[in-house]
Amino acid sequence: MASTSQTETPTQCTSSSLRSRGIATAQDAEKKGEIGELPEPKDPYSWDNEVGWRRFRFLRPGRGMYHDVRRRLPYYWSDIADAWTYRTVASTVRIYFANLLPALAYTLDMYRRTGGFYGVNEALFASALAAVIFSLLGAQPITIVGVTGLISLFNYTIYDIVSLYEPSIYPQFMCWTAIWAAIMHWIVSFGNWCDYMRYVTDFSSEAFGMYVGIIYMVKGVEELVDEFTRGSTDGFMSCMVALLFFGTVYGLEKVGASTLFAPWTRSILADYAYAFGTIFWVGFCHIPGTLKDVHITKLPITRAFYPTQDRSWLIPFWELNGKWVFAALPFGFLVMLLFYYDHNVSSLTAQAKQFPLKKPGGFHWDFFLLGCTTFVSGILGLPLPNGLVPQAPVHTESLSEYESNLTIIHTSGGDRGEIRKQTLTIRRVVEQRVTHLVMALGLIGTMTGPLLAVLGTMPRAIFAGVFFVVGWGSIESNGMLKKLRHLMEEHRFLARQNPLFDVPRGKIALYLALQAVGVAACVAISQTIAAIGFPLLICALIPFRWKTVPRWFTTEELATLDALTADNMVVLASLGGRPKEMGGMDEREGRERDAEGMKRQRVGSIAQ
Amino acid sequence: MASTSQTETPTQCTSSSLRSRGIATAQDAEKKGEIGELPEPKDPYSWDNEVGWRRFRFLRPGRGMYHDVRRRLPYYWSDIADAWTYRTVASTVRIYFANLLPALAYTLDMYRRTGGFYGVNEALFASALAAVIFSLLGAQPITIVGVTGLISLFNYTIYDIVSLYEPSIYPQFMCWTAIWAAIMHWIVSFGNWCDYMRYVTDFSSEAFGMYVGIIYMVKGVEELVDEFTRGSTDGFMSCMVALLFFGTVYGLEKVGASTLFAPWTRSILADYAYAFGTIFWVGFCHIPGTLKDVHITKLPITRAFYPTQDRSWLIPFWELNGKWVFAALPFGFLVMLLFYYDHNVSSLTAQAKQFPLKKPGGFHWDFFLLGCTTFVSGILGLPLPNGLVPQAPVHTESLSEYESNLTIIHTSGGDRGEIRKQTLTIRRVVEQRVTHLVMALGLIGTMTGPLLAVLGTMPRAIFAGVFFVVGWGSIESNGMLKKLRHLMEEHRFLARQNPLFDVPRGKIALYLALQAVGVAACVAISQTIAAIGFPLLICALIPFRWKTVPRWFTTEELATLDALTADNMVVLASLGGRPKEMGGMDEREGRERDAEGMKRQRVGSIAQ
Repeated sequence: MASTSQTETPTQCTSSSLRSRGIATAQDAEKKGEIGELPEPKDPYSWDNEVGWRRFRFLRPGRGMYHDVRRRLPYYWSDIADAWTYRTVASTVRIYFANLLPALAYTLDMYRRTGGFYGVNEALFASALAAVIFSLLGAQPITIVGVTGLISLFNYTIYDIVSLYEPSIYPQFMCWTAIWAAIMHWIVSFGNWCDYMRYVTDFSSEAFGMYVGIIYMVKGVEELVDEFTRGSTDGFMSCMVALLFFGTVYGLEKVGASTLFAPWTRSILADYAYAFGTIFWVGFCHIPGTLKDVHITKLPITRAFYPTQDRSWLIPFWELNGKWVFAALPFGFLVMLLFYYDHNVSSLTAQAKQFPLKKPGGFHWDFFLLGCTTFVSGILGLPLPNGLVPQAPVHTESLSEYESNLTIIHTSGGDRGEIRKQTLTIRRVVEQRVTHLVMALGLIGTMTGPLLAVLGTMPRAIFAGVFFVVGWGSIESNGMLKKLRHLMEEHRFLARQNPLFDVPRGKIALYLALQAVGVAACVAISQTIAAIGFPLLICALIPFRWKTVPRWFTTEELATLDALTADNMVVLASLGGRPKEMGGMDEREGRERDAEGMKRQRVGSIAQ
Repeated sequence: MASTSQTETPTQCTSSSLRSRGIATAQDAEKKGEIGELPEPKDPYSWDNEVGWRRFRFLRPGRGMYHDVRRRLPYYWSDIADAWTYRTVASTVRIYFANLLPALAYTLDMYRRTGGFYGVNEALFASALAAVIFSLLGAQPITIVGVTGLISLFNYTIYDIVSLYEPSIYPQFMCWTAIWAAIMHWIVSFGNWCDYMRYVTDFSSEAFGMYVGIIYMVKGVEELVDEFTRGSTDGFMSCMVALLFFGTVYGLEKVGASTLFAPWTRSILADYAYAFGTIFWVGFCHIPGTLKDVHITKLPITRAFYPTQDRSWLIPFWELNGKWVFAALPFGFLVMLLFYYDHNVSSLTAQAKQFPLKKPGGFHWDFFLLGCTTFVSGILGLPLPNGLVPQAPVHTESLSEYESNLTIIHTSGGDRGEIRKQTLTIRRVVEQRVTHLVMALGLIGTMTGPLLAVLGTMPRAIFAGVFFVVGWGSIESNGMLKKLRHLMEEHRFLARQNPLFDVPRGKIALYLALQAVGVAACVAISQTIAAIGFPLLICALIPFRWKTVPRWFTTEELATLDALTADNMVVLASLGGRPKEMGGMDEREGRERDAEGMKRQRVGSIAQ
């Protein structure tokens, strides 16, 4: 998680200076004009001051993509040159596990529920394909793209629907869904419509994070329940292993975030917690005797480089009946809508406000690329890859060089009246393409026979544990939970300097209730055959936040409760700049973050 | 855990005043002469100023017991009158579970390893017998007496030894062991030799607590391993249930110790965590379907009020061959030595320094009573009850009326520069006999048919969980772990006001190593047939602490690292007063405690 410096200079600061000092995030730095500020281009990408026909985004197709490429291309060489640090190694290992394990976990789910159409080979191929393309060509190579739980939900829900009519056409139908989706991706990216992502605030991204967390926890339980169909012994052993795996990774990451041992030891624990946990518990299940004798389900692997089912890689999509081709269109639209939100939000959280990024991203260009991977994956019968929401900030975080600083808060009066605590600041983020590319090569390597056999030794219970780790990470660090905790805390002990303290409790409860309704609606719909409709719900939260929510809250309250998910100018530059509706929102939000200090990002936690 | 007051008066104090104010424990109060100071008797119980033959304890038999009774008897009526508060209800429920569940857990262990001689009926009978006698006649009715894990260790080790020669004589042999032990109890109590317990410091009581914690964890694992002999399904389900039970009780107690919700809600969580966890997870195992179908082992119950084996209650001890009668003598001595340390230390921790007790105890008289219960239990073939080490402070704690105070630490400079935290102070302890007596009646009730049948529905896995809760409680709160944590903590973040900071790290490590060697030796011996020798090792730690340890440490260092386990004058009065060797030891120790504030006692945690 970062080569933490061992600087011993105690920062002798009073509490007020602590608050004002806080953490040197992009935001602060940006104010100082040191980092995160692009050299002002002569014609910045913006629509704010355009008049006449020039105001209409679709009349100037590709303008966003052109700016994205022009903005990022100058950094291409440095994306390779900057990678020569230890961070790259640790980050590659961490993101390899954080990408691979959940992808395999979702695949298990998909495999079972799509009649065995999507298997491990497809998932690996899709992950590797996306990783190669985005690491080499992406405008923001930090955003990791892969197989997510939501596309798995999509795939098996469509399977359920298609099965009602003609199960045999499922491969072609999915292919056409992908083709339509790809076309719409291209329309959106050429139409410069990614701009609306600048309106994404924590209101919807927290709700989305919570939704994803809950879905993952449910999936973990489902995996374990399914194991019981093979017999109670398998089921109970899997439960035990999943619980212990979760406890191990969670515990190691807690120690990594503590003040025990030296900074480098903590750093190692945090970087390799996933790897340690996985290796240990996979080995555990193979201890000869009682454990090995149970033969709990392992990951189902097939011949390397061949599709799981007996088919050629290319799906004969041209053979599909015309009526089905057009029936796939609305599904394609929903996939695009899902990716529009999911991919862009994961990209936003990977570039969220706490990371002092200096290199620009490019949302339009990346969304165009996503259309390409969607198309290719579609015609090859792979699960469609897109941005990994809970893991997205983990990559940036693993590339961050942390500085573990000592903060001494002097308390008035008395000798030795002081409180010592750790303040983590991010010195810099190693922004480059190499980790992403090496991870891609790792995934390709994993597709080969010998390594595929290693995957075949991994019990399904481990993946249930992975679901728990990723899901709980997304829930535990969620802003919704923080607000809930604030409401539950006994009033006397609430920190008065927390800006939330100034907001009436009823308002906080209302805000939380609105988010909770959104989450509950999404979770509920996900359990039905209408599951594929949830992107509509999620996307509806953005205009709801800007149009309806302000009726019930004052501007100050909203400024405290909510904030742009990414407010770094290097990010917003690609989205046409900061929304004019913002007001003084971010000033207040920054204050809260300062008071709390920086938290280390856990695997699976959405950016805060 | 205490009807916490909801006083809202924020104590505006600086850090120095916080330190000096600390918590209103017996110690502080004692200095003010408010509580914890007995009315000075005309002839205090002391041997310090005696001369001539009057110096020799054994020449004035029963002097300690006489003083004990004389000192406590005046409080007898108030022991009943003081009981009419809500605390009594909560405490009775809590201590009933904290006594019953572990006792049953140890019984499972004993039952398996003594050829089924000691069963549930014997354990309940022994617990009830001891509880009735000590609640009605004990000089310190707060000390809970029952069946411990160590006597279980004793019983099955003796079974192993006797089985080498003549398994059939085991009942009579145990009976004679008890008779000899009882006689030695009476000799010790008449000879006033409990006085040496005033030399017990945290050095040995922490080591003992750690030893007990480790043994309990091992026992929990052993129970689970044994479940595998019935089949892997039983084993894995038991593992799962034990882990989840542990997580539940631990989690509830954590919330109970937090600042969430109102004080009374936290109080309920802390008071009934054990009860909630037990009821929920027992019910869980009976959910029809996969769970119920496994039929994991339940507590083996037999006909109510009858011995587990087909025998009369009275053991025909007069039929034992004379050579075996005398062979039992050294075993009796070891039992006495175990109880001398175990019972007295549990009594000390029940009256430890953090509790502002006002009523005196009586070690000599209680040890005499323990001889009586040993004798009766012995001839009835019951496991011998004695003081429950990890649970002892829990009773006192559950009788404590906590005040949850807000402490505001002002940090220099700035508006709102402050830190708010909870400081728990014990307003008073409801010192009385009623909880102990009602618990005794509850145990007798549990022996009846209907309730015994309820016990018969409890899966053994719950008891493995109980072992984990009690064992981990004893380890987590142990002073050894705190010192270890201090050594592991990165140097920058160590609190400078912690007195440990002034002790060289090497010295702390040496001190810890000495304790660890003691613990390791005891744990190692416990796994062998020489297990019954461990009381010798434990008791040897006391003179070792006073004779040898001072060679390696300065007086100041020892004063910081160690302290009397109980230093309240109402306690020490029964032991002949404070040891003259003490010096200024307790001043320093108090400072550390103040800096840390009061912790809520968890079930199974030894007093700190």
